[in-house]
Amino acid sequence: MTADSSEREWSKSEVRIMEATHRALLRYGYAQLSISRIASELDQSKASLYYHYDSKEDLLLSFLEYVTDQLESNIYTDNNESPSQELERFIETLLPLQLDDDESQLRAAMVELRSQAVMDEKFRKQFTEIDDRIVNHLERIISKGIGEGEFRNVDSTRVAEHMFATISGVMCNRATTNRENALA
Amino acid sequence: MTADSSEREWSKSEVRIMEATHRALLRYGYAQLSISRIASELDQSKASLYYHYDSKEDLLLSFLEYVTDQLESNIYTDNNESPSQELERFIETLLPLQLDDDESQLRAAMVELRSQAVMDEKFRKQFTEIDDRIVNHLERIISKGIGEGEFRNVDSTRVAEHMFATISGVMCNRATTNRENALA
Repeated sequence: MTADSSEREWSKSEVRIMEATHRALLRYGYAQLSISRIASELDQSKASLYYHYDSKEDLLLSFLEYVTDQLESNIYTDNNESPSQELERFIETLLPLQLDDDESQLRAAMVELRSQAVMDEKFRKQFTEIDDRIVNHLERIISKGIGEGEFRNVDSTRVAEHMFATISGVMCNRATTNRENALA
Repeated sequence: MTADSSEREWSKSEVRIMEATHRALLRYGYAQLSISRIASELDQSKASLYYHYDSKEDLLLSFLEYVTDQLESNIYTDNNESPSQELERFIETLLPLQLDDDESQLRAAMVELRSQAVMDEKFRKQFTEIDDRIVNHLERIISKGIGEGEFRNVDSTRVAEHMFATISGVMCNRATTNRENALA
């Protein structure tokens, strides 16, 4: 399978900025994140970041796109898997059973970023795209499984939406409560 | 069925403050909410609110408890329902098919409040309690349905956790995207 058509090319300098944003998010959390801190991670001036991005918001919107591209390219690697293996790996990528501290923190930051979408139309548009991509991806796996006779003949759109809602809920609840018995 | 044991008594003045907080949240949104604005809704001074609550955070934690109590008391009203009717009404209360603007805004504010729990231990503790209460409630309905032979003999804890994760995901995704086809 090839990369998803919605993935775009990232230049080397963009990737460096995205990786620096990732490190700064882990170090300071969403609330304390600033362009200066991202610039420090890069050993560059704030001005060099403003050359690429108009604002912190603009940079974070790119970061969300980058994370989604990373997620999709992590997933599209193995051609020899059956649809059920592919589905299992997709879910395990979104919801690992064990998360190390950095992974937990990145996911927590994603929940905070998502909450920006309640009031901010640009974040809302970005999360609409992200969710569409993930649901489409799930749907493709399910349809393939039905086509190959591995899955029952379900409504793949409904099942994909349902699975995605459950995954989102677990992600959000893990990041915002101390509950241990949330769905594994 | 009687009220849940975790519900507490709310004094008249507490209820007035909670209702004023609700109105202020709808009027200004979470980001613009302040003790002054809540006091204005009440035609009272800020000082009178600080008599009851140490901080805005403290007031919002009470508000979360109040909303959860309201949710539970809305649900525990009809003794003549079957478990499946009760379950349906519970889900319809959490996830109405149609939301008016005020209901959408309150739910959106709840998503913003929840995101505070990523970094703030008090909010985290409060949402842990809220989620426990909702999952326990779901579990009681499911167990009752199994006991009365209306539902299949499933693991009621697992099913309740799964249902709650799905409901949370739909709530969160509705508040943060423009996607129309999210699970009804």
